[in-house]
Amino acid sequence: MPIRALVWGENVHEQENEFVARTYPKGMHGQIAALLAADPNILASTATLQEPEHGCTEARLAETDVLLWWGHAAHDKVDDAIVERIARRVWEGMGLIVLHSGHFSKIFKRLMGAPCALHWREAGERERLWVVNPGHPIARGLPRYFELENEEMYGEPFSVPEPLETVFVSWFQGGEVFRSGLTYRRGAGNIFYFRPGHETYPTYHDRTVGQVLRNAVNWAYSPEAHAELLSAPNTPVDKALEPIVERGAKLTHHPG
Amino acid sequence: MPIRALVWGENVHEQENEFVARTYPKGMHGQIAALLAADPNILASTATLQEPEHGCTEARLAETDVLLWWGHAAHDKVDDAIVERIARRVWEGMGLIVLHSGHFSKIFKRLMGAPCALHWREAGERERLWVVNPGHPIARGLPRYFELENEEMYGEPFSVPEPLETVFVSWFQGGEVFRSGLTYRRGAGNIFYFRPGHETYPTYHDRTVGQVLRNAVNWAYSPEAHAELLSAPNTPVDKALEPIVERGAKLTHHPG
Amino acid sequence: MPIRALVWGENVHEQENEFVARTYPKGMHGQIAALLAADPNILASTATLQEPEHGCTEARLAETDVLLWWGHAAHDKVDDAIVERIARRVWEGMGLIVLHSGHFSKIFKRLMGAPCALHWREAGERERLWVVNPGHPIARGLPRYFELENEEMYGEPFSVPEPLETVFVSWFQGGEVFRSGLTYRRGAGNIFYFRPGHETYPTYHDRTVGQVLRNAVNWAYSPEAHAELLSAPNTPVDKALEPIVERGAKLTHHPG
Amino acid sequence: MPIRALVWGENVHEQENEFVARTYPKGMHGQIAALLAADPNILASTATLQEPEHGCTEARLAETDVLLWWGHAAHDKVDDAIVERIARRVWEGMGLIVLHSGHFSKIFKRLMGAPCALHWREAGERERLWVVNPGHPIARGLPRYFELENEEMYGEPFSVPEPLETVFVSWFQGGEVFRSGLTYRRGAGNIFYFRPGHETYPTYHDRTVGQVLRNAVNWAYSPEAHAELLSAPNTPVDKALEPIVERGAKLTHHPG
Repeated sequence: MPIRALVWGENVHEQENEFVARTYPKGMHGQIAALLAADPNILASTATLQEPEHGCTEARLAETDVLLWWGHAAHDKVDDAIVERIARRVWEGMGLIVLHSGHFSKIFKRLMGAPCALHWREAGERERLWVVNPGHPIARGLPRYFELENEEMYGEPFSVPEPLETVFVSWFQGGEVFRSGLTYRRGAGNIFYFRPGHETYPTYHDRTVGQVLRNAVNWAYSPEAHAELLSAPNTPVDKALEPIVERGAKLTHHPG
Repeated sequence: MPIRALVWGENVHEQENEFVARTYPKGMHGQIAALLAADPNILASTATLQEPEHGCTEARLAETDVLLWWGHAAHDKVDDAIVERIARRVWEGMGLIVLHSGHFSKIFKRLMGAPCALHWREAGERERLWVVNPGHPIARGLPRYFELENEEMYGEPFSVPEPLETVFVSWFQGGEVFRSGLTYRRGAGNIFYFRPGHETYPTYHDRTVGQVLRNAVNWAYSPEAHAELLSAPNTPVDKALEPIVERGAKLTHHPG
Repeated sequence: MPIRALVWGENVHEQENEFVARTYPKGMHGQIAALLAADPNILASTATLQEPEHGCTEARLAETDVLLWWGHAAHDKVDDAIVERIARRVWEGMGLIVLHSGHFSKIFKRLMGAPCALHWREAGERERLWVVNPGHPIARGLPRYFELENEEMYGEPFSVPEPLETVFVSWFQGGEVFRSGLTYRRGAGNIFYFRPGHETYPTYHDRTVGQVLRNAVNWAYSPEAHAELLSAPNTPVDKALEPIVERGAKLTHHPG
Repeated sequence: MPIRALVWGENVHEQENEFVARTYPKGMHGQIAALLAADPNILASTATLQEPEHGCTEARLAETDVLLWWGHAAHDKVDDAIVERIARRVWEGMGLIVLHSGHFSKIFKRLMGAPCALHWREAGERERLWVVNPGHPIARGLPRYFELENEEMYGEPFSVPEPLETVFVSWFQGGEVFRSGLTYRRGAGNIFYFRPGHETYPTYHDRTVGQVLRNAVNWAYSPEAHAELLSAPNTPVDKALEPIVERGAKLTHHPG
């Protein structure tokens, strides 16, 4: 059974900015889904901010293996309850791939527990992404580096937690660097942050970017659900794996 | 100048449970502060849930280098705005030491971005903490292992992010294990989770526990504040470190 | 194409100790290979210390995707040149799974750069392995914990580098704990250390152990070879990706 | 008592290359020691390849808290027995700071268990080091970035293990990036790799580089020795912390 990937797009600039609309006639989410569809192991669909419950109903998330998230201008329009719902699904084991300006999305900040801030410049400068971890599954089939001739600059410090692994580091023409591919796990869910993807540039038409996203979906996928990681059950004394005798005071048995 | 440590105590069971009141006549926070005071490099004070703003005013946090947090029954009584205030101070560089049932405190869950759940049993059983990382500053001066004859059991899986380093692992009489000392950084702030400390047992009268807490305060302390990690400033094109020429479309300049 | 797994066995105790011979009539390597063969995605074969080049010829390693290593009494009989050969293959991307007493094998110590020491006791006591990272691929399909009624005890501190992730932690009847499943990457090669497997006990007849080993082989496998990670090539000035002009002194051009 | 830092210099190019000799009249080791001496908490001395036992006798290492290592042309002249001696001291708790071309020193490769390879170009180009982890003790007091106008380029992939933390990332004028400050622990010893320091440039006359090295020495220092991490003692059954009865077969008691 293929991996069910859901591409979430904010879908705001596509409606408001002529450049973005021309570059992404199907919407950015539509184009990202098209990149994923090149992998027969991935079944890609889309959801947008404007749909009821932002397209992230309980039922929809229940049949999603990996969620990709692109947002920028309307982070604060995303309902907090939906963010919590997504966080719970990630903890259970749904993969999450956060793209570019999604570094400031509610869901990414929620799962990182950190500011997730950075420096930025919108100048269409050259970005060169170096693979620093060629053995990582997300780097599979990639060249040593790849270039995006026009991108927004993101500069360090990127105030996120130290990742499990750093996969890419970016060089920018204007003099900055950025850790552009970072992996995390929260609960049972794999998380990948991937830097490129400013809406005014054709980044999601790039072949190598497509390969990275397909690799990331395959890496983030897990066939299992671990809802048990969200609860804190009591193990009664008489069910202890080794025989023990209860001793000392208990909160539930006052001495008087 | 000594490290200014603030011990936050929920201060609920001390008022309601006779065992707890007898064991901790100064309150748990008072006893933890007494443990810290044995280090001349630490200046310890206390705050409780019941104080205005839970004793965590802007002014108080501004003069706190390391915050220790013990809570259990009243996590939900802690005001969300105070939790955000503390999170921001941690990101700026304030150290945070989370104790025992604080695994489910709002501030710990906020900074971990994870469920932070576990299994538990209140049976006064034996816990033996093994030092798995003897070179870590928090393990300084400790024996290979130390025992707490009566403790609450916490069992794995502990659904927290993979730590920077694991310092302690606990053995429980009833057959469970637990990663009992874990380090993290969020923003510029060092975080240490330390497992023992159930309120009905005299854990905070234990000498080795005191040594761990003093080590942890010294480790978590940072003399610097990094408020800049919370903001995402623009770097204008004409201030780029390497000369670049602006190219391509911008969000702020529509073509028409 | 299935994953080509090579199970290396020291094959000494099977010849010398009647208990071991009875428990493992095909040799420990043979039994481990049988466990792997239950996965149609794995093609398992074996090699032993006694074969020419310990069965690890250049040709054999070239067609090995994942190597499993069990040794105990004869670590020092393994030729240093073969150890270097294996290390190079791991760096290129071959997976390596090190079993039990292999913690002191030349190849594990070589790749860890650390003492890899521990405490031990051969008393046939109960070991209970807890899954501390249920979302990790190596934990797939496993119960919350599993028990081995008779095992050798290994106790902390296990002086290995902090792992990428901790998958299992063991509880021992005699009072110790041990981080029993640890992941690493060296070069492009994935490495998994798995604790159980003392030769006088039927550990490799255990169904759950078999599941762990099959999971580990699938996790450690990489389809790519990254021999380039072993060399340090010069990038000439005239091949620089951004135009630069050579400046300053060079080692190769003396001023006189 | 101040931290006893020993700066080891290969001391070859200082004798053979006029540029190097002019830039470092006291030797590179002498100049690095001078940088450290600006910290009253550090007592710096030097040793060179040419001294008996390379200046790293048992006695000398026994009174060294942190060793700094600069080598380039003569890695293979360092005696293997001395390398093992240093590795053991690191495992016991001596700090180690490896500089620039020391990435290919025997001691660094020994402790990393990895190729430690990279790409390079000697063109005197501009390097800009960005602090990606401002809360790390090694970044204390540093600006957001600092520049070295003339440096050798090192490019990714740097085939070292994933570090505990990444502190610096370098931007190079010719288009490459490099993870320039990486932390590790092996046994009880803290290890820091710091990239800059090509011998034909005045890098060790840079004030910020001096600050980094002093910070690193303070960070790497540990007051404790943990020789016990190098041995694997037996814990006899009758000394078990919990009472157990010996069961099953043993290697040392054959059934016949």
